[in-house]
Amino acid sequence: MTTASKTDLDRSVVTDFQQLSQFGATPGGGVDRQAATEADGAQRAWLAEWLVARGFRVEYDRAGNQFGLLEIHPGAPYVVTGSHLDSQPLGGRYDGAYGVLASAHAAQRVAQQWREGNLAPKYNLAVVNWFNEEGCRFKPSMMGSSVYTGKIDVEQALSTTDRDGVSVAEALSGIGCLGSGTGPQAAAYAEIHIEQGRNLENDGITIGVVDSTWAAQKYELVVHGDQAHTGSATMPDRQDALLGASLLVVAARELAEDFATAPLHTSVSQMTIEPNSPVVIAREVRMHLDLRSPIESVVDLANERLMARFAEIEARAQVRIEKATAHSWGVAGYQPEGVKLSMAAAEDLGLTYRQIMTVAGHDSVNMKDVVPTVMLFVPSVDGISHNEHEFTTDDDVCAGVDLLTEVVARLAVGELDRTS
Amino acid sequence: MTTASKTDLDRSVVTDFQQLSQFGATPGGGVDRQAATEADGAQRAWLAEWLVARGFRVEYDRAGNQFGLLEIHPGAPYVVTGSHLDSQPLGGRYDGAYGVLASAHAAQRVAQQWREGNLAPKYNLAVVNWFNEEGCRFKPSMMGSSVYTGKIDVEQALSTTDRDGVSVAEALSGIGCLGSGTGPQAAAYAEIHIEQGRNLENDGITIGVVDSTWAAQKYELVVHGDQAHTGSATMPDRQDALLGASLLVVAARELAEDFATAPLHTSVSQMTIEPNSPVVIAREVRMHLDLRSPIESVVDLANERLMARFAEIEARAQVRIEKATAHSWGVAGYQPEGVKLSMAAAEDLGLTYRQIMTVAGHDSVNMKDVVPTVMLFVPSVDGISHNEHEFTTDDDVCAGVDLLTEVVARLAVGELDRTS
Repeated sequence: MTTASKTDLDRSVVTDFQQLSQFGATPGGGVDRQAATEADGAQRAWLAEWLVARGFRVEYDRAGNQFGLLEIHPGAPYVVTGSHLDSQPLGGRYDGAYGVLASAHAAQRVAQQWREGNLAPKYNLAVVNWFNEEGCRFKPSMMGSSVYTGKIDVEQALSTTDRDGVSVAEALSGIGCLGSGTGPQAAAYAEIHIEQGRNLENDGITIGVVDSTWAAQKYELVVHGDQAHTGSATMPDRQDALLGASLLVVAARELAEDFATAPLHTSVSQMTIEPNSPVVIAREVRMHLDLRSPIESVVDLANERLMARFAEIEARAQVRIEKATAHSWGVAGYQPEGVKLSMAAAEDLGLTYRQIMTVAGHDSVNMKDVVPTVMLFVPSVDGISHNEHEFTTDDDVCAGVDLLTEVVARLAVGELDRTS
Repeated sequence: MTTASKTDLDRSVVTDFQQLSQFGATPGGGVDRQAATEADGAQRAWLAEWLVARGFRVEYDRAGNQFGLLEIHPGAPYVVTGSHLDSQPLGGRYDGAYGVLASAHAAQRVAQQWREGNLAPKYNLAVVNWFNEEGCRFKPSMMGSSVYTGKIDVEQALSTTDRDGVSVAEALSGIGCLGSGTGPQAAAYAEIHIEQGRNLENDGITIGVVDSTWAAQKYELVVHGDQAHTGSATMPDRQDALLGASLLVVAARELAEDFATAPLHTSVSQMTIEPNSPVVIAREVRMHLDLRSPIESVVDLANERLMARFAEIEARAQVRIEKATAHSWGVAGYQPEGVKLSMAAAEDLGLTYRQIMTVAGHDSVNMKDVVPTVMLFVPSVDGISHNEHEFTTDDDVCAGVDLLTEVVARLAVGELDRTS
C-alpha cells in the first residue's frame, strides 16, 4: 500500500470535473440532469469512455446501475466505490457527480499502483454510478442502490413512471443503459460526497468521516377538503385542503422553532394540489412532511407534538388529514472499523478530519446494510446544496480524491477484513 | 308578447339537460369538459344540431364563441342570450351549461311565439355559448366574451397556451370551432346561471335578479426563496418559499376571520411550486390570492391589512414577496332598467324574486359594459359549486327558463329601449 503527500497532488480530477459539469449545464451555474434523461445518458457515455480508456470494462445491471470493472483476481469479489451522476432540477454540480468522478480517479490510481507492483489487492475494483439517487423524476430516491441491495424489487423499480407516464424501463432503454444481471459482488463499499451542511467549513476541517445517519420520520400526508367556488362559497362553508396543508407547513416550522436548543429539521417542500385552479377551493393536497434529528428522542417528541396538532388543523380548515405513508428510522451507524480505517488514512495523509453524521440519505446508507462501508465528506461552501450555487474548493476536491484513493487501496488489500 | 303560467310549464329542458350532462360525465356525478377538449367539442356539436333542428344558423367567431342565429329582420342587431358550456375539472353539471341550454330553449320559445304571430320582435335572436369562461385550461377566464367585447386582443387569446403548450388556436381548430369574424351585433344580452351561493335557498326564493358585482382585489404573487437540501440545510439558513406561501394562505384566512361581521371572502386555491421535490426546499411559489366583498371599503381595508403582513412573513420565511400582477374592481352595477324589466317579468309569471349581487364573474359582467344586460340566478342547493355535487331542482330549472323566455321576449320587442 502507498501513501500520498500533499506535495504530489494529482489535480487531473479538477479538469475532468469541469468537463463533466458541462452535461446538463444550466445558465445559473448548476446542472439539470435528472435520471435517465438525455443529459444523464450523455454523461454516462462520457464516464464509460473515461473508464474504458483506463482499462475498465463497463456494464449495466438490470436497474440501470453503471459499473466500471477491473478484474485483478478472476471470480473474486469487488471493492466497490462510487456515488450518483443524476441531479435535481437546477441542482448543483457536486452532489453525487463529485463522488463518482472521485471514485473513478481513486480506482484508477489504485489500479496504477497494482500495475506498477506497489500494491497487492486481494479484491477486484469496481466504480459505480448508481441509478436515480435523487428520486425527483422517479420515486423513490436511491432506487439503483435499493435494487442492488435487495431493498426494493427490480420489477417495481422498472415499472415506476414519471409525471408523463414514462417508465424507468423505457427511460433506461432510451439512453441505452438497461442492462441485465445483478452487478458485481461487493466485498466492501466506499463513497465520498460533499457535506451539504456547514459543519466542516465552520470547524475548518477538510474531511468528515461519517459514523451514522440522523433519525427521521417521514410522512406522505393527504389533506382532504371539498371543491367550492373561490368567490361565492361562504367562509364557514369552505373545506379548504390548501388551508389545511398550509397550516401543516407552518406547524412543522413551529416544531423546529420549539426545539431551538436541540437540532430538529422539519420540511415540507412538495405539494400536489387538486384541482389547482385559481377559482376552485382545493379538494385535496398531497404533501411530504419530514422531521429529522441526530437525537432519536427529539424526532419521537416532535412527532408526538405534530400528531397533537392534527385535530386543531382539521377543525380550523374543515378537512381530514390522512397519513398515506409513514417511514421512520433511528440513528443508524456505519461500521466502526470503517470509520477507524478512514481516520487512520486521513491521519497518514496529513488531512484534518472529524467524525460526522449525515442528515441526507446516500447510496452508502443502503450499502452499509450489506457490506462494510465507508462514507466520507468534503466541505460545502456555505453549506449550500440542491442549488446551482453548490461549491467545494478545488483543494478540497483533490484532498478528497487522495483520501478516497487511500481508503480504496486499504479496502482492496483486505485491511478491513483483518481489523473486523 | 306572452306570459306563461306555472301550470303549462314546458319541461323538455329537463330531458335535454340530462342528455347534455352526459358529455364529459364523471363517476362522481359531475362533468369534466374544459375548454376546447374533446368533451367540449362533442357538446358543441350536440348543441349545434339542437339549434339547426329548430331553424337557427350556427356559426363560430374568431375566438371560438358558438352562436345560434335566427334572423327575423335582415341586418337588425340581435338580442343575445347564453352562457358557457365549458367546465372546471370535476366541475358541476349546472355551472354555465344550464344557462346555455336555458337560452336555447328561451330563444326557441320566443321564435315560436313569433312564428305563431303572437310576438313582433324588433331584433333578431342569438343563442351564445361563450368560449372558455372557466379559464382553467387557458387563462384568463371569460376569454370568449372578453374578445367579443374588445377587452382582450384576439391574437393574445389565440396564442395563449395550456400546460402542454397547446395554443387556443390549435385546440379550437382541433374541435372544428375556430371561426372568423366578430359574431353578431348585440342590442342587448341576457344570461341565467345558478347562484353558486346559499342566499336564494336560505330565503326560499326562486329567482335572483343580479343588480351588481362584488368588489374584488386579486393578486398573482411570487414568493422568492432559494433551493436547499430539505435534510441537511439548517433551519436558520433556509429561505423557504413554500413556508412563505403557506404563511400567506393562513394570513388570508385570518383576514376573513377578522371581518366576521362584514362579508369578506379570501382565497388561495392555486400554487405553482418550484422545483416541487420532496428533498429540495422550494425556491419559488407562484400563487393567486383574492379578496372579495360586497362593500368596497372592506376590500380596501383588507388589502391594507394584507400588505401590512408582508414584511413579517418575508422576515420569518426569509423570502421576498413579489406582486406579479394586481387587478381590482369596485362594486359594478348592471343597468337598473334591466333589473326592473326582469323583476316585472318575474312578478307577471308569479315567481318569487329578489335583487342579489354576484360574487363570481360571469360573461354578463363583460357584456353589461357594452350593451344593456340582464343577469338572472336560480338557487343552488347548499350553495355548492365548482364541485360534482352542484345541484338545482328541476322546478327551479324550469322556472328559470320560463323567466328567461319572458325576459328575452321583452328585450326582443325593444321594451328596454323604451324604458331606458
